[in-house]
Amino acid sequence: MKTFNLEEYIRDVKDFPKEGVLFKDITPLLNHPQASEQCLQELLDLIGDLKIDKVVGIESRGFFYGTLLAKELNAGFVPVRKPGKLPYNTNSETYDLEYGTDTLEIHKDAIKKGDKVLLHDDVLATGGTAKAVVNLIESLGGEIVQCNFLMIIGFLKGSEKLKDYNVASVLSY
Amino acid sequence: MKTFNLEEYIRDVKDFPKEGVLFKDITPLLNHPQASEQCLQELLDLIGDLKIDKVVGIESRGFFYGTLLAKELNAGFVPVRKPGKLPYNTNSETYDLEYGTDTLEIHKDAIKKGDKVLLHDDVLATGGTAKAVVNLIESLGGEIVQCNFLMIIGFLKGSEKLKDYNVASVLSY
Repeated sequence: MKTFNLEEYIRDVKDFPKEGVLFKDITPLLNHPQASEQCLQELLDLIGDLKIDKVVGIESRGFFYGTLLAKELNAGFVPVRKPGKLPYNTNSETYDLEYGTDTLEIHKDAIKKGDKVLLHDDVLATGGTAKAVVNLIESLGGEIVQCNFLMIIGFLKGSEKLKDYNVASVLSY
Repeated sequence: MKTFNLEEYIRDVKDFPKEGVLFKDITPLLNHPQASEQCLQELLDLIGDLKIDKVVGIESRGFFYGTLLAKELNAGFVPVRKPGKLPYNTNSETYDLEYGTDTLEIHKDAIKKGDKVLLHDDVLATGGTAKAVVNLIESLGGEIVQCNFLMIIGFLKGSEKLKDYNVASVLSY
């Protein structure tokens, strides 16, 4: 029942957000309810019958399918956000970018020790962001059951940073 | 079937993001799958049998229930985002804040003339943001069927800025 070629609903945008980057824009997919539903089902197929207590979505594009996955899995949804966005007590993790650093935060009460956690984002690129979120989840005692992505950009080797985890994606480039 | 008192899942955080503001934190609601499902059903009840082609969610907290509503309504989801976040051709709208201005963007191809549109955000406060998004939707020829919120902060009088529209919310403060 793969009616749609999902790649046709992901728009390549050259030189965004900076020169030399080919950005994968998922807004056409979100805009098309039937293709988007197929995408959700394919993300769920990656998870199979794994038991999930919490879905962690990474700001902001990980919120789209992250919330949908949480509902379908009957799991709680936990947003990981940029500094200063989460209003309550947080743990934070700073990680290296090509130039400089970035920081992400999670509410301390969002995950309990032993919770089975699905990490979700739209794209796995260099893996710096995902690894920081892995650290945040584990800082709260969560057990990462799968790192789940809509797509993996293979040549950026993000999977190597997540080699100790179950990494899965619908599309690979 | 209102099993949960949703207000119990919305956390008041004093002086966030700045002194004197009582912030309504919906992350405990998102974290609780059964209460969150009830919230989604109550948002859908507000919509009833209105025909919706597109759900527009406002960055970032409007993305949570916005994506869920789009799926349930079999509608496309359209994110409205802060400047520089949407990669393709956009329309933008600048609006006044208490001090200074803010700007929001929408992809020009996200809504077609005559599309029936549901605007969704978590909170209606002063209404400045929502009115800017109304203008963005109408700049593309969309017809706003409902401005749909999880909660309205009544004393901030945001509904007055939307008086020509169908405004609905699950909770009122």
